[in-house]
Amino acid sequence: MKLSKIAKIIGAEFSGEDREILSMNTLKDADKTQVSFVSNSKYVKDIAESSAGAIICDASTKDAVPSKSIALVVENPYWEMAVLSAYFAPALEDVDAPEAIIGEGSVIAPKATVANGAVIGKSTQIMAGVYVGSNAVIGDNVILYPNVVVYRDCKIGNSVIIHANSTVGSDGFGFATNKLGEHKKIYQNGNVVLEDDIEIGSSTTIDRAVFGSTLLKKGVRIDNLVQIGHNCEVGEYSVFVAQSGSAGSTKLGRNVVVGGQSAFAGHLEIAAFSTFAARSGITKTIKESGKTFAGFPLMDHKAWLKLQVKLAKLIK
Amino acid sequence: MKLSKIAKIIGAEFSGEDREILSMNTLKDADKTQVSFVSNSKYVKDIAESSAGAIICDASTKDAVPSKSIALVVENPYWEMAVLSAYFAPALEDVDAPEAIIGEGSVIAPKATVANGAVIGKSTQIMAGVYVGSNAVIGDNVILYPNVVVYRDCKIGNSVIIHANSTVGSDGFGFATNKLGEHKKIYQNGNVVLEDDIEIGSSTTIDRAVFGSTLLKKGVRIDNLVQIGHNCEVGEYSVFVAQSGSAGSTKLGRNVVVGGQSAFAGHLEIAAFSTFAARSGITKTIKESGKTFAGFPLMDHKAWLKLQVKLAKLIK
Amino acid sequence: MKLSKIAKIIGAEFSGEDREILSMNTLKDADKTQVSFVSNSKYVKDIAESSAGAIICDASTKDAVPSKSIALVVENPYWEMAVLSAYFAPALEDVDAPEAIIGEGSVIAPKATVANGAVIGKSTQIMAGVYVGSNAVIGDNVILYPNVVVYRDCKIGNSVIIHANSTVGSDGFGFATNKLGEHKKIYQNGNVVLEDDIEIGSSTTIDRAVFGSTLLKKGVRIDNLVQIGHNCEVGEYSVFVAQSGSAGSTKLGRNVVVGGQSAFAGHLEIAAFSTFAARSGITKTIKESGKTFAGFPLMDHKAWLKLQVKLAKLIK
Repeated sequence: MKLSKIAKIIGAEFSGEDREILSMNTLKDADKTQVSFVSNSKYVKDIAESSAGAIICDASTKDAVPSKSIALVVENPYWEMAVLSAYFAPALEDVDAPEAIIGEGSVIAPKATVANGAVIGKSTQIMAGVYVGSNAVIGDNVILYPNVVVYRDCKIGNSVIIHANSTVGSDGFGFATNKLGEHKKIYQNGNVVLEDDIEIGSSTTIDRAVFGSTLLKKGVRIDNLVQIGHNCEVGEYSVFVAQSGSAGSTKLGRNVVVGGQSAFAGHLEIAAFSTFAARSGITKTIKESGKTFAGFPLMDHKAWLKLQVKLAKLIK
Repeated sequence: MKLSKIAKIIGAEFSGEDREILSMNTLKDADKTQVSFVSNSKYVKDIAESSAGAIICDASTKDAVPSKSIALVVENPYWEMAVLSAYFAPALEDVDAPEAIIGEGSVIAPKATVANGAVIGKSTQIMAGVYVGSNAVIGDNVILYPNVVVYRDCKIGNSVIIHANSTVGSDGFGFATNKLGEHKKIYQNGNVVLEDDIEIGSSTTIDRAVFGSTLLKKGVRIDNLVQIGHNCEVGEYSVFVAQSGSAGSTKLGRNVVVGGQSAFAGHLEIAAFSTFAARSGITKTIKESGKTFAGFPLMDHKAWLKLQVKLAKLIK
Repeated sequence: MKLSKIAKIIGAEFSGEDREILSMNTLKDADKTQVSFVSNSKYVKDIAESSAGAIICDASTKDAVPSKSIALVVENPYWEMAVLSAYFAPALEDVDAPEAIIGEGSVIAPKATVANGAVIGKSTQIMAGVYVGSNAVIGDNVILYPNVVVYRDCKIGNSVIIHANSTVGSDGFGFATNKLGEHKKIYQNGNVVLEDDIEIGSSTTIDRAVFGSTLLKKGVRIDNLVQIGHNCEVGEYSVFVAQSGSAGSTKLGRNVVVGGQSAFAGHLEIAAFSTFAARSGITKTIKESGKTFAGFPLMDHKAWLKLQVKLAKLIK
């Protein structure tokens, strides 16, 4: 899309040399073919380092935009980013893509749907009612149980099992809100990547990234009714027990164990080999690996046990 | 159904003038074509004001029934109401209804099902594996992602997005229990109404009303794995984060924000612009708007923070 | 499978008389046609009483194996049991089984799938997008709402209602982990049995047993988004409110009431007529029936109320 068109859509002035913008991205990851935005004072420090072709900003941040980028000044950059995201959203299905490619020995149930542009590996079983979206890539020896939904553009490795009624790639929970309290959807134009040897339970939901990928690394085990938010990264062999979840952009190291009904706030980093007892509520980054935690607010597991003894005394 | 037949079904004596009863309703909302019931001393005060054609009651409440209504006296009114509800339940599908009407520019995937009597608006996309029940009404510019289920008689406005594997209109969790501990299903003969510009995540469940409607107003945002109980009302632009929920008949004002894994008890009223931190447990009505809460039992968010400081001291 | 082959698969020495082994089971339940294992010192006591044809054990437990059983000695019995479980897993679908039998008056939607070997009773309604696996047995007067998935070999009684997008019989969350932190799937070769007169909400998940059956007894009521782990047993007329769950192998008596968002740890026994307030966390067996509990850690409901009063005073 021409930069001049983008400026028009979001109501920004634009008078420089026009250029082609292919997609949207964060300040940190954007290149000169991409438009980015700054909406939070926390990220102002990233502006100077950004390679974005254009940056949506407000009057207070425009002077920080480096000369190689074009500043698009608006009143509410987050809202305008949401407005613009709709223009970069792909169609629900890529009807013009070539018919799906199905690998040797794979079985696609007659009542499954594999959209155009999808690629299915070898010896994979796609059961009844499964939906695999456009340009999705599914590996070898995969089992998708009935009614699993894999949204377009998602990538699933080899030897992955996904149980019935689970969803991979639904939109992350993103929207901007204006002063009237109205919401504007932020289209989630990233995807989900599942590496090899992963098992996912039934009715679990893994949201696609707003930009880039939500990533589950090799050997991860996810139980039933678990929620993985957009842009999360789950390290090798990590385990989520039933009804647990994570808000967006949290990154877990390898072999993290997440007890049932536990949950992470967003934008955290969790050290490898951390263990969380059932119903932990994690709201802070954990840097030291190999420790065991419990409670909400979260504390060392031993401290939690001690607290329960103290509380029991309170009522005696 | 003739009132004399109803009396026979529930084992009540009936000797007055017979009349046609079309459906069941609450004491407050029933008109003379409807039968109601009183099973809870809390609602005895509503009897005198009721316009119901007939009221199922027990010996202790029959004298409160106004002369324009007919009292149907039974031992366990709640149980008999459950028995009777089955007789007013519509068929799973209305096979005699005319074929569904599909608006201009709408795309119904070949593997979707749109039952007879349904009406689909314009430029709407119904993806594979979706089920739209009899007499359901879907607006314009709606997207129903794969395997979404909309039960019969539900109404969905314009510009609504529902992600994969979510359910709109499943039966609310209603049953009567007798002295032997046995349960009798209360058929949920109401529906769900979603107004315009709503987005609902994946594997979320919104139950139909027992009578009347479960209602989500304009601009509501619901994340993944959320439960909305029967007869709830969710105000404009309110937000439910993942794995939160509400028991039945709770009414939220506009722009209420419900943190992840939070939950409401039933029959509450929640003031507009209330905010609930993650994992709040709300068991009481909130009358003052614009406040922020946390914890279970619920308290002012600042009080909750203070409590955590005190608890941390307990174990030092 | 020949015992000699099993020995080869798991890398155990074997020199005795060969025999045919038909399946795997626990020490307690295995007969001479079955292979069992001991991986936890807690179960060493069960070895002597076991009638298993062969027992996978390590060097420290092999001497406890009775003479009628053959000891298969390996370094990590739990891991080798997981390795072996894959060999006893049945195919996803039993394609050679005879076509499904459909009882009189039952309606199978054209977009539903009933696999070979399944048996459907009378007057049952299987709606669009439902999947019923091989050799599953569904009773009379059952309603399976759209997109319900019943895995192979599961058994559903009469007058059962299952709401949309729920899953019966997905694999329990079972895997062995080695010293490198890698996981090996334990195939779940048991099933789920639902007795008569049960209602299950939408997007609820009930896992199949690793061996034997996950069992829900007559009259049970399960709300939406509930998780029932492998090998659980839920007593007659027990009730799970939305977003609650149980880890594996917990056994509930009759008329237990489980509040919303509550959860049980695994391997517990819960006395009949126990009631758990919303968000209870139950980690210990309950022997006395008819009591009411709350909190996490769990306590008597009255104690929990008293504790909240004390905590409220802390911040005054």
